[in-house]
Amino acid sequence: MTNSPAIILMVPQMGENIGAAARAMGNFGLTDLRLVAPRDGWPNEKAIAMAAGALPDIVSVSVFETLDEAIADIQFLLATTARRRDMVKPVFSSSGAAAELQKKTLQENKTAILFGRERNGLENEEVAKAQGIIQIATNPNFASLNLGQSVLLMAYELFQKNGDQLHSQNTSYEEGASLAVQKDVQTFLQRLNGELEYGEFFRSEGLRPTMERNITNIFTRMDLTEQEVKTLQGILSALLKSGHKKTDP
Amino acid sequence: MTNSPAIILMVPQMGENIGAAARAMGNFGLTDLRLVAPRDGWPNEKAIAMAAGALPDIVSVSVFETLDEAIADIQFLLATTARRRDMVKPVFSSSGAAAELQKKTLQENKTAILFGRERNGLENEEVAKAQGIIQIATNPNFASLNLGQSVLLMAYELFQKNGDQLHSQNTSYEEGASLAVQKDVQTFLQRLNGELEYGEFFRSEGLRPTMERNITNIFTRMDLTEQEVKTLQGILSALLKSGHKKTDP
Repeated sequence: MTNSPAIILMVPQMGENIGAAARAMGNFGLTDLRLVAPRDGWPNEKAIAMAAGALPDIVSVSVFETLDEAIADIQFLLATTARRRDMVKPVFSSSGAAAELQKKTLQENKTAILFGRERNGLENEEVAKAQGIIQIATNPNFASLNLGQSVLLMAYELFQKNGDQLHSQNTSYEEGASLAVQKDVQTFLQRLNGELEYGEFFRSEGLRPTMERNITNIFTRMDLTEQEVKTLQGILSALLKSGHKKTDP
Repeated sequence: MTNSPAIILMVPQMGENIGAAARAMGNFGLTDLRLVAPRDGWPNEKAIAMAAGALPDIVSVSVFETLDEAIADIQFLLATTARRRDMVKPVFSSSGAAAELQKKTLQENKTAILFGRERNGLENEEVAKAQGIIQIATNPNFASLNLGQSVLLMAYELFQKNGDQLHSQNTSYEEGASLAVQKDVQTFLQRLNGELEYGEFFRSEGLRPTMERNITNIFTRMDLTEQEVKTLQGILSALLKSGHKKTDP
């Protein structure tokens, strides 16, 4: 895959884990590793040692301060989580996720998998930015997978799918409809939330994070196309105008 | 599987690798780890630390002086090798091997996978004792898998083949979140379209059917829950209010 999925590590703590992730990526042909606010900065000697030669030549690393920046150009994002979330999002097995990522990639979308912090995983707000969730099924009595292992399994699954799926094109989108980049989705959501605040939608500051997350979930779940994000922006403008014209809304 | 495949490590050098293998086994429900002449003896503190709790309770370890002793009770043995061998034996992919091991296990055979030394792998004489060979396909330009990774991938594949995955394919949605009935979705869409008309969203009557259909597509594609339709209704009201408050929207 020239346009293979990116691997995004959220605030990775241990250089060893970054290195193990890079090595696993190299083993299975992934090349785009993104680090969000790595604890020990970058470059990291332990990471490079652990990568067994994958860094820096086989796998390229880019570093971002925030998740939003890291996913700005991503069109289809899945987040790995170990525990259940009270969120309405598609949940994929590791194999199902690889198939979906493969499909989206063949449709010329830039895709990525987001992995959480070693100890605490991902915050709900971070998961909310993804279009779906990956749960790697494990032994329920001993479920802990570390970061390097999780990246390895997903890289492996992608490599398996890549081998056997070149024929099974699946066209769920109209031709030429490319998915929106996350930056445009975020811009829309920020504008929406601003207007909602002005419209007194958030009944209390305490409820606000949950409500914002629910809204994010609604709009990230549906794999919006570029054109649809423009449509939503137009809808928002029109609704404001409609409200403005009313004497008593 | 009560009678799940054993994992046999041939002269493992590093305690860390033994621990990583044990952890991977625990993650995917394997319990029978056999060590042939481990370099540093047994027990091994580094192995136990690396196993993250899998040793000694989740995975049991037995130690043998020779490979023959370790495989004495095994009825179907596959050997992993990285390089081609001049041997007439069936060669399995990781997935194919897991399927074959699963089949043999269901037929009440005691099965095992043999892994070679960290640096040198298996001798030809050792490979010869196996009924078949497993080659895990990797990126040919960066093929090195370490011992822990190899065990992880095989344990993972066996678990996939095994019936009791926690999640199969795309199971979705938090428990208790029931999907909206179409009537409520339609009510929302009618209200939305009414407000959009009032807000002069539809630039021409000719374009209107297409634009309405695009909007319907956006909101029907995502399998909205009951609660989410209520949220969307609330968003709509808040946007109208926001617009109303503005002197110049």
